[in-house]
Amino acid sequence: MFELNSETPIRKGVIHTSHGDLQTPFFMPIATRGAVKTLSTKEIEDLGSPIVLSNTYHLFLRPGLEIMERMGGLHRFMDWNGAILTDSGGFQVFSLSQRRKVTEEGVLFRSPIDGAEHLLTPERSMEIQLTLGSDVLMCFDEVIALPATEQQTLEAVERTERWAKRCKDYYESHVGSSKNPNAKLFGIIQGGTDHALRQKSAEGLLKIGFDGYAIGGLSVGEPFQDALAVLDELLPILPKDRPRYFMGGAQPHQIVEYVKRGVDMFDCVLPTRNARHGHLYRWKHPDLTKPDFYEVINLMNAKWKGSTESLLDPNLPESKGLTQKELGRYTMGYLHHLFDVQEMLAYRLATMQNLLFYLQLFERMRRGD
Amino acid sequence: MFELNSETPIRKGVIHTSHGDLQTPFFMPIATRGAVKTLSTKEIEDLGSPIVLSNTYHLFLRPGLEIMERMGGLHRFMDWNGAILTDSGGFQVFSLSQRRKVTEEGVLFRSPIDGAEHLLTPERSMEIQLTLGSDVLMCFDEVIALPATEQQTLEAVERTERWAKRCKDYYESHVGSSKNPNAKLFGIIQGGTDHALRQKSAEGLLKIGFDGYAIGGLSVGEPFQDALAVLDELLPILPKDRPRYFMGGAQPHQIVEYVKRGVDMFDCVLPTRNARHGHLYRWKHPDLTKPDFYEVINLMNAKWKGSTESLLDPNLPESKGLTQKELGRYTMGYLHHLFDVQEMLAYRLATMQNLLFYLQLFERMRRGD
Repeated sequence: MFELNSETPIRKGVIHTSHGDLQTPFFMPIATRGAVKTLSTKEIEDLGSPIVLSNTYHLFLRPGLEIMERMGGLHRFMDWNGAILTDSGGFQVFSLSQRRKVTEEGVLFRSPIDGAEHLLTPERSMEIQLTLGSDVLMCFDEVIALPATEQQTLEAVERTERWAKRCKDYYESHVGSSKNPNAKLFGIIQGGTDHALRQKSAEGLLKIGFDGYAIGGLSVGEPFQDALAVLDELLPILPKDRPRYFMGGAQPHQIVEYVKRGVDMFDCVLPTRNARHGHLYRWKHPDLTKPDFYEVINLMNAKWKGSTESLLDPNLPESKGLTQKELGRYTMGYLHHLFDVQEMLAYRLATMQNLLFYLQLFERMRRGD
Repeated sequence: MFELNSETPIRKGVIHTSHGDLQTPFFMPIATRGAVKTLSTKEIEDLGSPIVLSNTYHLFLRPGLEIMERMGGLHRFMDWNGAILTDSGGFQVFSLSQRRKVTEEGVLFRSPIDGAEHLLTPERSMEIQLTLGSDVLMCFDEVIALPATEQQTLEAVERTERWAKRCKDYYESHVGSSKNPNAKLFGIIQGGTDHALRQKSAEGLLKIGFDGYAIGGLSVGEPFQDALAVLDELLPILPKDRPRYFMGGAQPHQIVEYVKRGVDMFDCVLPTRNARHGHLYRWKHPDLTKPDFYEVINLMNAKWKGSTESLLDPNLPESKGLTQKELGRYTMGYLHHLFDVQEMLAYRLATMQNLLFYLQLFERMRRGD
């Protein structure tokens, strides 16, 4: 399923899915509730992203599993023919739900929407992800609150491993008869910034065997150098022929460093969330070895009021797509105005620009810029 | 500028503008602040509307006249090559601003945004609309609070007439050197539901002479029959070779009645505002002589949860445009979900459907369905 084509200067490969090939390294725009916030499915297509990430937890609560089954899965629901990776619900159940109770069986929690009680288990998470029809499923893991003691981290690592085994068992006996028999399953390595625990977590998952390995529990407030140190220790012990996925937010210059160390896949809420707050990512120059290759500008800055500069990033490497054509119609001054008066179009245009930036960053890395 | 081509069964004609021909009767989507709420300029183009209406009052407050001048006018600001009609600010200054003071000179008011004091006069309204580069300018009129005595209504009618004369004078001496020398100026007939006052108002404006005549001060809560009675008395005394514009909200079956009586132009906030509240206009059958030719459905109704019915209105007369293609990708169940989780895409798709409905209603009337 994963072809590694080169290792230097960065890893490049292809993941084959039932919904197209994914050239690594790649970025996944986030479609939490079955839509990339503010965008239509056609606009994601126009951006040229071959994959989106969607959230098991959110779709499980609304519209719910029965509806997703009736609608024929997530691809058909949002009319998206590209690939979909779904997270397991593990992170959200710990960060968003109320009055959760963790047992060996799984996590009992109350929905923040209507207070209804739900039990999410490794098997249930797999069942939901298979019903959604994801191309890449993630194992249900235990995410712990920080700061945590070494003992707490160890227990979470061990439980995550036991849950990963249950996920693998459920997946193996159900994926063949699911709507996407070619779906892949990734394990999630936990262990915080403790190298020994990270190694233990990785070894446990490697013994079970997965189609890919994700690094969870980073980008949670630790210094950037600590995240790099974890990757420096961890990536060399992972098999070369399996894709590695860095879960969680990363700024563009951080992504460049992670890719250099051998990470293949990313998701990140920053381009879309920042867009909705009027912060635009734009290219400064194409030299990715210098960390100032981009800037983040604040559209509400008075500088942009009445600016006749094109909204299309002047340093954009490729300017031929439909998204570029759409952005090129407007000025920075118009976008400033739309933000000022809070027109929805503002959030859409800024989201397009930021996703275009992130996607083109990966295109540049794949091309070897 | 206006060619009347037929009078029965309904008036049909063409208004020629510097930004295209407008076949009457027609409907104007509302782009209050330089954008049709939720939509991009391309999406208005895809809908096939040849004109939008924009608001002098809102654009005067934000981004302001100096910025609009620097941006080269409203067409360039929103990259819209179709026609634009701007209202005069009269209605908004009376309905939205704080601590207003009306004198013969104009209206002194405070901005609800920053409390700054502004004076809007007939001349200033013309200046703003010429700076925006509108294709159709509206006279600055006095709008009175209801209920009003006959004396109050009479005074407003007389002042509106004096202000209309000042608008005409300013327009005549400035339009030639403006960015849209072919711009037209419409007068606004006031007078409430009092036939004698309506007639007096019309006669006063006819003496001054305008490119078109608007009927203001209806759709403000009076019974539908009263609005019809005003039109029945008023329209026969208006010149046939000038377009008539009904200002304000109207439901589809009311529009059919107004058009029958000889109205040529409409704007209406209902399709866009209702869309954002999850109310969809859909065709029931094509016979416009029966008032139940359409229905308004509530998307949040449980009936639509998990519905696999296409979002594309099954009774839509024309299904070839880009908007139809976009709507046809999704199901009613998906739109229900998007509203449930408050994704912006929900408001966009519903806005498209409702504007398509209104625009197709007019297309059917022009075709003689």
